[in-house]
Amino acid sequence: MNAPAAVRWENDRLLLLDQRALPGEMIYLSIDSLDAAIDAIRTLAVRGAPAIGIAAAYALACSMRDVEGGKFADTLAANATRLRDARPTAVNLAWAVDRLVSAANGTADYAVLVSEAARIHAEDRRICRAIGESGRHLITPGCRILTHCNAGALAVSELGTATAPMYLSHEAGVPFSVYADETRPLLQGARLTAWELSRAGIDVTLLCDNAAASLFAAGRIDLVLVGTDRVTANGDVVNKIGTLNLAVLCRHYGVPFYVACPSSTFDAGTATGSDVMIEQRAPIEVTGPNATGAAVYNPAFDVTPAGLVSALITDRGMLPSPDREKLAEHFS
Amino acid sequence: MNAPAAVRWENDRLLLLDQRALPGEMIYLSIDSLDAAIDAIRTLAVRGAPAIGIAAAYALACSMRDVEGGKFADTLAANATRLRDARPTAVNLAWAVDRLVSAANGTADYAVLVSEAARIHAEDRRICRAIGESGRHLITPGCRILTHCNAGALAVSELGTATAPMYLSHEAGVPFSVYADETRPLLQGARLTAWELSRAGIDVTLLCDNAAASLFAAGRIDLVLVGTDRVTANGDVVNKIGTLNLAVLCRHYGVPFYVACPSSTFDAGTATGSDVMIEQRAPIEVTGPNATGAAVYNPAFDVTPAGLVSALITDRGMLPSPDREKLAEHFS
Repeated sequence: MNAPAAVRWENDRLLLLDQRALPGEMIYLSIDSLDAAIDAIRTLAVRGAPAIGIAAAYALACSMRDVEGGKFADTLAANATRLRDARPTAVNLAWAVDRLVSAANGTADYAVLVSEAARIHAEDRRICRAIGESGRHLITPGCRILTHCNAGALAVSELGTATAPMYLSHEAGVPFSVYADETRPLLQGARLTAWELSRAGIDVTLLCDNAAASLFAAGRIDLVLVGTDRVTANGDVVNKIGTLNLAVLCRHYGVPFYVACPSSTFDAGTATGSDVMIEQRAPIEVTGPNATGAAVYNPAFDVTPAGLVSALITDRGMLPSPDREKLAEHFS
Repeated sequence: MNAPAAVRWENDRLLLLDQRALPGEMIYLSIDSLDAAIDAIRTLAVRGAPAIGIAAAYALACSMRDVEGGKFADTLAANATRLRDARPTAVNLAWAVDRLVSAANGTADYAVLVSEAARIHAEDRRICRAIGESGRHLITPGCRILTHCNAGALAVSELGTATAPMYLSHEAGVPFSVYADETRPLLQGARLTAWELSRAGIDVTLLCDNAAASLFAAGRIDLVLVGTDRVTANGDVVNKIGTLNLAVLCRHYGVPFYVACPSSTFDAGTATGSDVMIEQRAPIEVTGPNATGAAVYNPAFDVTPAGLVSALITDRGMLPSPDREKLAEHFS
């Protein structure tokens, strides 16, 4: 049993798993209008850059189903703009929408759009599977893995990125266990990773982020495996706040630290992690309704220096000790 | 302005700050019966070992106010037993109750009990102030301190332990700032430390536990200062889960790691931290009502090895690089 898909296309209909309701309820939203798609993207019913891109592609195709030939090009352009604006910082959203517009190439054929959306979806599946194949050998029988945030099926498609080696090993009957950091303040580990892994029948244990050190000290972590939002030209890893903490613990306790990295997250145009502007998010995410008057430090991401990364696990294989030259060659 | 007192004795009445309502509301409970005191202790209206001991001492004295001489000894014994049973693991509770019973020494004098309770309270204040005096020189102008959990006025009396050097430096007009980990799962840092320091006018910033590493990486932490529940004979420090994580970060980034340690927390009878049974707490503290089916690892404490401790700050002065011999001498 694998994790439920975040995005499904069935009988010419787009279904989105409503991640706002997880883990309490598992509800698929049937997206029958552009407004419904935009609303789902804006309110984080669907989240994770690749999943947003796939959902947007299908949603754009859907929105063109009954449009007459004479109005096709104008409507496509207008709908594409509205979708792109739904979450302007989501790079994959604009990228996927642009791919559909290019695929239409002036024709008024709804089926072409659906095909292109399905192609994006299939590519994402292939990339996740390739990451899984690149990293599955790391998961030896009895292995105990610590992960952070959600780089799983719910953020991408089918196998996820950091979770792909886990799903493939689990399918192959390799016994292993996973510790999932809850990942404050938004609890993606508790709400999503623990949920999707346990639904897939994988042995998963949830912990508060600050409890990880005691597991390392007790010799109960064999490797750390996380995803990434961006890898800069020198190999620095930008990922969910708390990732750096695990990398430092790995260094102190002599445990390998692996980062699952689809080629799309390699950013050759940014020299180092310190060149990346880190988004500071709202205090209320941390304090909830009971603020104390104290200031709040709530960065969304941190930067793990390349020197703390044992290897990147990419859709093109493993890349140990990533540095500028190796990365350029690996992703060329 | 200092932090509000957790325990007050005014006009022959015991007042307890209801810490369950913090930081939303500041309510003092007037404890007018033994039942009310037991309820306050059981439900964590008052928390922190020293504060519980002080509250129990005053509560026991109160409960004897109108007891006739002939029934005094039997009632005192019965009330003492009921109080001790309110939270059997709280060592200070039994210790304070026993001190009052000894002080009564067969007499039927309510005033003797009140005096002994006040003496316990005054001793605790003196110890906190002595810790503050031992550690205040560490807080130089512009210093940025990271702390964890609540070893503040709300857990002890007046100045707290880890917070005592902060309160004294603040009184003296030294400018400094504090970062307070929120301290999952029970959020003592967010609810209590951030609240009491900001009320006292100290510059305090709240963060999720997993965000600390990014502050170290940015060079924004000059020292870490935490409390402790127990220091074992070899200098290992047992404290709130997440403390070890900060000690490892300190080692990696070359930042000093200080532990405020009242003499009462030195446990010469326990050889090392690994001899201490760590309490595992209920999963619901981590998951809340939305459990996912995943197992939960929720230890209340972790053990920081003595080798990661730069110095203990005690009511008898500073003790750098604590080891078995130095500790025995320091606390002899």
